[in-house]
Amino acid sequence: MAEVRELKINPADMNAAELAQACADELFRRDDASQYLGMRLSDVAPGRATMTMVVQEFMLQGHKTCHGGYMFTLADSAFAFSCNTYNQATVAIGCSIDYVAPAFAGDLLTAVATEKSRSGRTGNYDVEIRNQEGALIAMFHGKSYRIRGEILPMENSDD
Amino acid sequence: MAEVRELKINPADMNAAELAQACADELFRRDDASQYLGMRLSDVAPGRATMTMVVQEFMLQGHKTCHGGYMFTLADSAFAFSCNTYNQATVAIGCSIDYVAPAFAGDLLTAVATEKSRSGRTGNYDVEIRNQEGALIAMFHGKSYRIRGEILPMENSDD
Amino acid sequence: MAEVRELKINPADMNAAELAQACADELFRRDDASQYLGMRLSDVAPGRATMTMVVQEFMLQGHKTCHGGYMFTLADSAFAFSCNTYNQATVAIGCSIDYVAPAFAGDLLTAVATEKSRSGRTGNYDVEIRNQEGALIAMFHGKSYRIRGEILPMENSDD
Amino acid sequence: MAEVRELKINPADMNAAELAQACADELFRRDDASQYLGMRLSDVAPGRATMTMVVQEFMLQGHKTCHGGYMFTLADSAFAFSCNTYNQATVAIGCSIDYVAPAFAGDLLTAVATEKSRSGRTGNYDVEIRNQEGALIAMFHGKSYRIRGEILPMENSDD
Repeated sequence: MAEVRELKINPADMNAAELAQACADELFRRDDASQYLGMRLSDVAPGRATMTMVVQEFMLQGHKTCHGGYMFTLADSAFAFSCNTYNQATVAIGCSIDYVAPAFAGDLLTAVATEKSRSGRTGNYDVEIRNQEGALIAMFHGKSYRIRGEILPMENSDD
Repeated sequence: MAEVRELKINPADMNAAELAQACADELFRRDDASQYLGMRLSDVAPGRATMTMVVQEFMLQGHKTCHGGYMFTLADSAFAFSCNTYNQATVAIGCSIDYVAPAFAGDLLTAVATEKSRSGRTGNYDVEIRNQEGALIAMFHGKSYRIRGEILPMENSDD
Repeated sequence: MAEVRELKINPADMNAAELAQACADELFRRDDASQYLGMRLSDVAPGRATMTMVVQEFMLQGHKTCHGGYMFTLADSAFAFSCNTYNQATVAIGCSIDYVAPAFAGDLLTAVATEKSRSGRTGNYDVEIRNQEGALIAMFHGKSYRIRGEILPMENSDD
Repeated sequence: MAEVRELKINPADMNAAELAQACADELFRRDDASQYLGMRLSDVAPGRATMTMVVQEFMLQGHKTCHGGYMFTLADSAFAFSCNTYNQATVAIGCSIDYVAPAFAGDLLTAVATEKSRSGRTGNYDVEIRNQEGALIAMFHGKSYRIRGEILPMENSDD
């Protein structure tokens, strides 16, 4: 029951940190894609998110290193969570990734997304992916675009 | 047995189209990541590759459209197959994607990769992803880098 | 005098091709940056623009080839003219360039910008730069964002 | 005469900081493109460079803000100087820029380039452009590729 009550909290009553966490919890709950790959959202704050993922066997490509697509997906998820921390539905309109070093089966990858700018409808976010030894694996840049709608339902005060 | 004999064909004896197909077959066989997502390699030629993927439920993110990471992965695979058609091991060093329209569960996505340039160790490839109605879903650009090694084993004639 | 009268034509009365040309003429007239580098706008149509520039001595960097910045500037101008053909003020929010071959002093560079998508406030444009021999020199991608305002003044009917 | 003697110092005798400075001095001396726009190289270290440029009237485009091409050129120069600090001739193979805020005539722009990775022949560099108030104007990413040759002539010991 606790969860139900929590979901009824009015976003308008939250501070920025609470709002960021509530948005992330709601989006992660709905985000089959990130859950499917075993991603975990380890930290979130306004404009920031940290996600982890273990490289699994099925993520390896023909050269037997992690397919860039899965690394991109991890970074893209961290980016999505970081730009959706203001309860304004926001989508990616363009992203780039630069591969620095390969990742191997069993590696624990950590993606840290940081907001670099946000004004009008668009924003810019950087994500760095590092492995369990702290080595830089990939750098990602995402451009966000705010669409209509909220992430959390705005409830009436008499609910 | 046919397959075994085919694999023994010496790459040096193939023409460019045969070499491209043989490289793609070999890489796809080893590429757990692309197979895992149900990708199919429908066409390959020197510097070109076409791949398809159906958007599945587990690929949906919190907004209930296909996670950009899976679209990227499809494009990245098509790119990888297109730049590895010369039997020279080649990896991606950087990629970008621009999202044009959302993809939904059940959509059949087709990614067509085309070589724009190749000289020295690097190359540039464009990939367009379209849905079953031919609508442009995303544009991808990949930069390749040739590393040491071949894709197909160069066999001795007495094998 | 003909030119003065032409400028008074109401944009609302123009067809798409006329509007594209009128927007380009007006923007080019105001565009000190493109003129300063000797660029010429050789062709414009809705979502398309072709610009040329001769590589001059002052554009050479330390390796004695054309500084990438000037090639980028040419592509960026072609992009700007192509996305501003609808009489809606539009700016760049992000661009990328991939260098394929060097350009030398005296080379005549032609940049052809093509609209790949346009919906809502954003659009995607590709630009290819080729030299006088038709060789591909650089590939550019631009993402546009429509801001408030028009390019051509909308005149009152009694003017 | 001092300069002549300085140029005769053998690069092999320099420490990393001296080598970075000597490479930058030599490249800047030859770099007509950067000098032409009034750029100044205010700081250089291994893998790092800071350049400044004042936005001049001729740099304004049709919207009367600084043409993105000139901002790109500044960032590209800072990138070039930062990746050429090891006395190994290195060129850009691809760059991207994200525009955050406009720059106006008279603004003093500072571009700080930082090396994010370097291995094999390629490297990744980030550049941030800020104005005189410290506001972020644009973010740039450059990918470098080491070609043959040095920047400083390696002199024989008996010279």
